[in-house]
Amino acid sequence: MDNKSNSNGIGTHINGNGSNGAHVNGKSEKEASSLDYKLPNSKRVYVKGKIFEDIKVPFREISMAETRLHDGTMENNGTIKVYDTSGNWGDENVKCNPTQGLPAIRLKWIKDRNDVEEYEGRNILPIDNGYMTEEELKSADSNKNGKLEYYPGLRRKPLRAKAGAAVSQIYYAKKGIITPEMEYIAIRENLGREAAMDYALYNDLKRNEINWQHKGESFGAKLPDYITPEFVRDEVARGRAIIPANINHPESEPMIIGRNFLVKINANIGNSAISSSIDEEVEKLRWSIKWGTDTVMDLSTGKNIHETREWIIRNSPVPIGTVPIYQALEKVNGKAEDLTWEIYRDTLIEQAEQGVDYFTIHAGVLLRYIPLTANRSCGIVSRGGSIMAKWCLAHHKESFLYTNFREICEIMRAYDVSFSLGDGLRPGAIADANDKAQFAELETLGELTNIAWENDCQVMIEGPGHVPMHMIKENMDKQLEVCKEAPFYTLGPLTTDIAPGYDHITSAIGAAMIGWYGTAMLCYVTPKEHLGLPNKKDVKDGVITYKLAAHAADLAKGHPGAQIRDNVLSKARFEFRWEDQFNLSLDPETAREFHDETLPAEGAKLAHFCSMCGPHFCSMKITEDVRKYAKEIGIKEEEALAAGMEEKSKEFVESGAEVYVK
Amino acid sequence: MDNKSNSNGIGTHINGNGSNGAHVNGKSEKEASSLDYKLPNSKRVYVKGKIFEDIKVPFREISMAETRLHDGTMENNGTIKVYDTSGNWGDENVKCNPTQGLPAIRLKWIKDRNDVEEYEGRNILPIDNGYMTEEELKSADSNKNGKLEYYPGLRRKPLRAKAGAAVSQIYYAKKGIITPEMEYIAIRENLGREAAMDYALYNDLKRNEINWQHKGESFGAKLPDYITPEFVRDEVARGRAIIPANINHPESEPMIIGRNFLVKINANIGNSAISSSIDEEVEKLRWSIKWGTDTVMDLSTGKNIHETREWIIRNSPVPIGTVPIYQALEKVNGKAEDLTWEIYRDTLIEQAEQGVDYFTIHAGVLLRYIPLTANRSCGIVSRGGSIMAKWCLAHHKESFLYTNFREICEIMRAYDVSFSLGDGLRPGAIADANDKAQFAELETLGELTNIAWENDCQVMIEGPGHVPMHMIKENMDKQLEVCKEAPFYTLGPLTTDIAPGYDHITSAIGAAMIGWYGTAMLCYVTPKEHLGLPNKKDVKDGVITYKLAAHAADLAKGHPGAQIRDNVLSKARFEFRWEDQFNLSLDPETAREFHDETLPAEGAKLAHFCSMCGPHFCSMKITEDVRKYAKEIGIKEEEALAAGMEEKSKEFVESGAEVYVK
Repeated sequence: MDNKSNSNGIGTHINGNGSNGAHVNGKSEKEASSLDYKLPNSKRVYVKGKIFEDIKVPFREISMAETRLHDGTMENNGTIKVYDTSGNWGDENVKCNPTQGLPAIRLKWIKDRNDVEEYEGRNILPIDNGYMTEEELKSADSNKNGKLEYYPGLRRKPLRAKAGAAVSQIYYAKKGIITPEMEYIAIRENLGREAAMDYALYNDLKRNEINWQHKGESFGAKLPDYITPEFVRDEVARGRAIIPANINHPESEPMIIGRNFLVKINANIGNSAISSSIDEEVEKLRWSIKWGTDTVMDLSTGKNIHETREWIIRNSPVPIGTVPIYQALEKVNGKAEDLTWEIYRDTLIEQAEQGVDYFTIHAGVLLRYIPLTANRSCGIVSRGGSIMAKWCLAHHKESFLYTNFREICEIMRAYDVSFSLGDGLRPGAIADANDKAQFAELETLGELTNIAWENDCQVMIEGPGHVPMHMIKENMDKQLEVCKEAPFYTLGPLTTDIAPGYDHITSAIGAAMIGWYGTAMLCYVTPKEHLGLPNKKDVKDGVITYKLAAHAADLAKGHPGAQIRDNVLSKARFEFRWEDQFNLSLDPETAREFHDETLPAEGAKLAHFCSMCGPHFCSMKITEDVRKYAKEIGIKEEEALAAGMEEKSKEFVESGAEVYVK
Repeated sequence: MDNKSNSNGIGTHINGNGSNGAHVNGKSEKEASSLDYKLPNSKRVYVKGKIFEDIKVPFREISMAETRLHDGTMENNGTIKVYDTSGNWGDENVKCNPTQGLPAIRLKWIKDRNDVEEYEGRNILPIDNGYMTEEELKSADSNKNGKLEYYPGLRRKPLRAKAGAAVSQIYYAKKGIITPEMEYIAIRENLGREAAMDYALYNDLKRNEINWQHKGESFGAKLPDYITPEFVRDEVARGRAIIPANINHPESEPMIIGRNFLVKINANIGNSAISSSIDEEVEKLRWSIKWGTDTVMDLSTGKNIHETREWIIRNSPVPIGTVPIYQALEKVNGKAEDLTWEIYRDTLIEQAEQGVDYFTIHAGVLLRYIPLTANRSCGIVSRGGSIMAKWCLAHHKESFLYTNFREICEIMRAYDVSFSLGDGLRPGAIADANDKAQFAELETLGELTNIAWENDCQVMIEGPGHVPMHMIKENMDKQLEVCKEAPFYTLGPLTTDIAPGYDHITSAIGAAMIGWYGTAMLCYVTPKEHLGLPNKKDVKDGVITYKLAAHAADLAKGHPGAQIRDNVLSKARFEFRWEDQFNLSLDPETAREFHDETLPAEGAKLAHFCSMCGPHFCSMKITEDVRKYAKEIGIKEEEALAAGMEEKSKEFVESGAEVYVK
C-alpha cells in the first residue's frame, strides 16, 4: 500500500514534532519505559494456548466500576478484554529497551518446524542506506540527513527455508497443519468472548435479556460463532486469509488478515527525503500500536532506509510491510529508468532477511495498461505505479516485476513474506474511479494471485483510492471474483475529493462500507493526506478513525463478540458511569478531556446528570420510571396490547378513517 | 431534532470559548463586519430570477489560477460557483448589524400573495424568558444567568393567514402556483451548472473529455438533469420536499429539503441551563453558516429562551428550527407532569409569531409504546421523547401532542411552520437499533404525516440515532413506505458506540450512507457528543464533517453538478495549483495550515513537487510522459489493443495455462 504519492503524493509520513517517548538512536543511554503507554483502568492479561502451551495471547483487560441500583445494592460490572496490538510496550510489568528490541517469541516455533536454516546472509552495503560509495558513507556525519548509527541490538543470522522447502503459513495450512501462529490467532480473534459470557451473566441478573440480535448481513462472509484453530487453518489454506509472519521477524505477535475475521487497519510511517529522522520512527511505531494499528508499513525514502527498518522491525510486535521499489529506486539515485531486476531482487532479499512481513509489489502495471491512464483526471497517483510506468515507458518493455513474478514467489516462499499486490493504477480522483485502467490491472492481479498460490505464497490485493459511495461495492465484488477471495486491502476509499484536511473522514466513510462488504484490512488516511506530513496527532487521529471504521464494519458483518464493547460502553453511559464510559472508549484520554472542558470538577463524574440538561431534568432518570411502570403493568401483556392496537390503528388509517376524534 | 439529550444528553450546545466575532447584547455599540467571514479567492455573486425579477440568489464564486501547460502557454481555469448559506454575513459589500437584523427579503413576496394579515400578536411574558413573575424579571440582573436585553431592532407586527386561508408552500404548490421561493430554490439547486458548462468548455480544450460518468444509483430518487421551478413545485405538492419558510421569518433565504435535491445539513446551537450566553449564540449562528450549514436549530433551555431566539431569527438567513416542548417545560419550572396543552399551544404561537421555520414535535410517543422501551439498553434518549413519556406516565393519558394534532396543524398552516415529527423513541445505543419501540413510533409518524398533508402543512420526519451499518437501509426503506416519501431528517446515525470524542465521524459514516439512500437532511453531531458542550472548533468540525458527508451522498445519488467541485479540485491538485486546491476545499483555512506545517515557504506553493516525494521523483510528472506516449501511439488503437490482449490473457488463465514463460 503506497499511498505515499496518493494524488499530491504525501500523507503517509509523520512529521517529528517533539516525540515525547524514548530516544532510540543510541546517542544517549536510555531505557524506554512502557508505562507511558498505559491506558486507564487497564491491565495486560494473557490467555494461554491449549494446543501449544507456550502461547500467551495478550489482551487489555478494562475493569469497570459497580452500578448503584435503585434499591441501594451494588451490581458488579466485571471486566472486558479487548484486542491489544501494543506488544510488550503495552505490558507495564515488562521493561522494553529499543536498542535491544523485543523478545523473539516465535523463534522456537519457527525452528521446531525443522525446515529453516541459518546462513550468513547478504552483506549490508552503503547503498542500502542511500550512500553510493563507501567514501560517501564515511564522510557522512550522524545528523539528520547523514549517517545513522547501526542498530546496536543482537543481530541474529537470517533464516531461510532449507533447499526445496516452503515455510509459509499457507503451505502448512494446505498440509493440514495447525501452527502455533494459528492457535494464537484463534484465541486472539475470539476477543472478549469470555468477557461476553461474563457480561451476559451479570446482565442477566439485571434485565433478563441481552441484546444480541445484530448478526449482520455479511455479503458472503461466513463468520462462525467461535473462531477455532481449524477455522484459521482452513481459511489460510483456501487463500481467503493471510498470516503475515516472516521467519526473520520472530518478534511479531501473530495476526490474520481475511474477511472472515476482525477487520484490520494499517498505519504508514517512514522517513522521507524532506523530513523526519530515525528515532522518531520507532516512536511512531510505538505510538501507532498504542492506539491499535494491526500492521505498520515503513514507507521510508531517502537515506538510512535499511537502518530505519532494522530499528522498526526489531521493536515491532505487529507485522511490518514495505514497498521495496522505494528502496530500489534510492539505490539508482532516484532514476526509475535505471532500475533493474537484479537491483530489485537484491532489495527483496535484503528486506526479507531483515524480517519484513509483507511486500507491496506493483506487478500488475503492464505496459499496455499505461496509455489507459492518459485521459484520466489525475493520471497515475500511486508512487510505485508511477515508477513502474516510467520504467516501462523508458524501456518500452514489460514490467520486470511481472516477467520475474515466479522468481519473486520463490523468495517470498523461502521467508514467508506475504504478497500485497499493489494497485499501481488506482484512481486518485472521483472522476477516475472504477475506470478501465483500474480494472485492467485488477485482472492481472487476479492472474498473479493464482501464480502466488501455486507457489505456496500468501497474497492479499490492494485496492483504491478515490471512489464515490455508489461505486464502492463494485470494487469489492470484482476483487472477490477476479482474485478468488484473496484478502482485499484498501486505502479508504475516499468518497469525495473536496475536503482536504478531513480526508481521514472522507475515507473512513468508504473504509467502513468496504470493510462491511468484505475488505480485510483498511490502510489509514490521516488528516494531512494530500497536504503534508502527519504529526503525532495526525497519526493518532488516523488510527482512531480507522479503528472505529473497522469496528463499524465488524458490527455490520456480525463478527461474534464485536458488539460486546458497544454494549458495555452504552450501559456505562446509561448509568452515568462516566469513568467507565471514558475507559471503554477507543481513546479514553480525549473522551475525558472533552468531558472536563465542560464539567471539570471530579464530582461531575459521579453525578447522575450531565452538562446538557443540568440537574433538573434527565431523560435517563425518566427511563427508570418507565421500567417501574412496565413492571407494574407487565411487559408481556403490554406488548401484546400494543401489537393489537397497532394493527387496529393500521386498519383505521387504511380505511381512511381517523384514529382519534378531537 | 432534539439530539440534546442523546444518551448522556449533551452534545448540541456550544461552549463560549472566546467568541471572536461581534458582541451583540447591546451592552456596547458595535457594528459587526462581515469581512471576517470572507473565504479566500471568493466573492459573492448573485443570479437573478427569470420569473420573479427581484430574486437574487447568492453564490460564492471561487476563482482559480491559470495552468501553465508544457508548451509554456497558459490555460484559463475560470471560476466555480458554490452553494452559499452565509447570507449577507458573507457578502463583503454589505455591512451587517446584528442589533438591526437582516433585510426582510421575502416580505414583499409574502404580502403580495394577499393572504396574510398583520395583528397585534401575543404579549411577551416574563415566563417566556424563564421568569415566573414580573418581580423575578425585575430583580434579575443582566449578567449571564440574569435578564437579557431585549432585541433592539425594529419589531414588526406578526403576520398570520387571513381567516380561512392557508399560507403554506405546499398549499400553493398543490394549487399549481410557483412562488418566488420556488424559483429561488430552483436557481440555487442548480449550483454550478453554469460553472459546469464553463468548466466543460475549458476542459474540452485540453483533454477533449470530461468525465461525467458517475450518475449515481439513486435508490428511487429521481434527479432531473436540471432543477426547474416546476419541479420544485411538484415535489413540494407531493409532500416529497418541504420549504421551511415561516411568513414571520422574511429574512430567510429560501431552501428546500427533499431527497431529489441536494442533501442538507443542520447545526444545533442554543444556550443551556449550565452554560453559554446570548451573544455567543448569534456568533455561533454566523459561524455555522459560514461553514455551510443549511438550517440551524435553536435548542436553548434555561433563561432567556425567547430573547435568544429573537436575536437568532432576526440575524439568520437560514431556516430556524426549535423543539417547543423545551420552552414549554421551562414555563412549568422543569416539571414535565405540569405541562398542559394550553401552555404548549401558547408556546407554539409565541414561536410561530417570532418566525421559527420548523418545529420538532414528538407527537408519536404514545402511551402504549412507552413500555416497549423498558428492556432497552439505553431507554429513551430523546429529551422531547422523555418529557412526553414522563407526562403520559404521570397522567396515564395519551400524549396531548397526539390528541391535539389537528389543532397544531391549524397553527402550522397559519404561519407556514413546517412539522419536523420527532423520533422520541429513537435508539440511543447499537443494541437498541430498529427495535419495536422505534418502529412503532414511526408508524404513528406516518399516520400524522397524512393528517398534516390533509391540512396543507409541510412535514418532515426525524430519524435515528445509533444504528449499525447493516441496519441503516431498513430505516430509510420503512420511512419512505410508512411516511409516503415525506423527507427524512436523521441524526447521524452513529454506526458504533465505542468512540466518544469521535462521534462526528462514527455518525458521518451513517449519515453519508443514509443520505445516499434518500435522507434529505442530516443533523450534525460534534466531537463533543455524549461528553460536553461543543466549542467553536467542535461546531466547525461538526459542520465540515457533515458537509462532506452530504456531498458524498450527493455524488452517490448523482445530483447533477455535484461532481464539478471534485473535478476542479482534483484538476488543481494534479496540476500542483496548491492555492486553488486550498481555496476549492470545504475548509480552505485548515487545508492551507496543514500544508504550511510541512512546507511553510511561499515558494512551495508554486513548486511542482510536494513534501512527500521531494523534488527528485514525482508521480504527477510521470503522467505527463504517459500522455505524450499515449499521444504518440494513438490512444484509440491502444485501447483496442489492450482490450484484445485482456481477452487473450483471460483465455490463458481460464485454460490453466501461464501467461508468460520465464
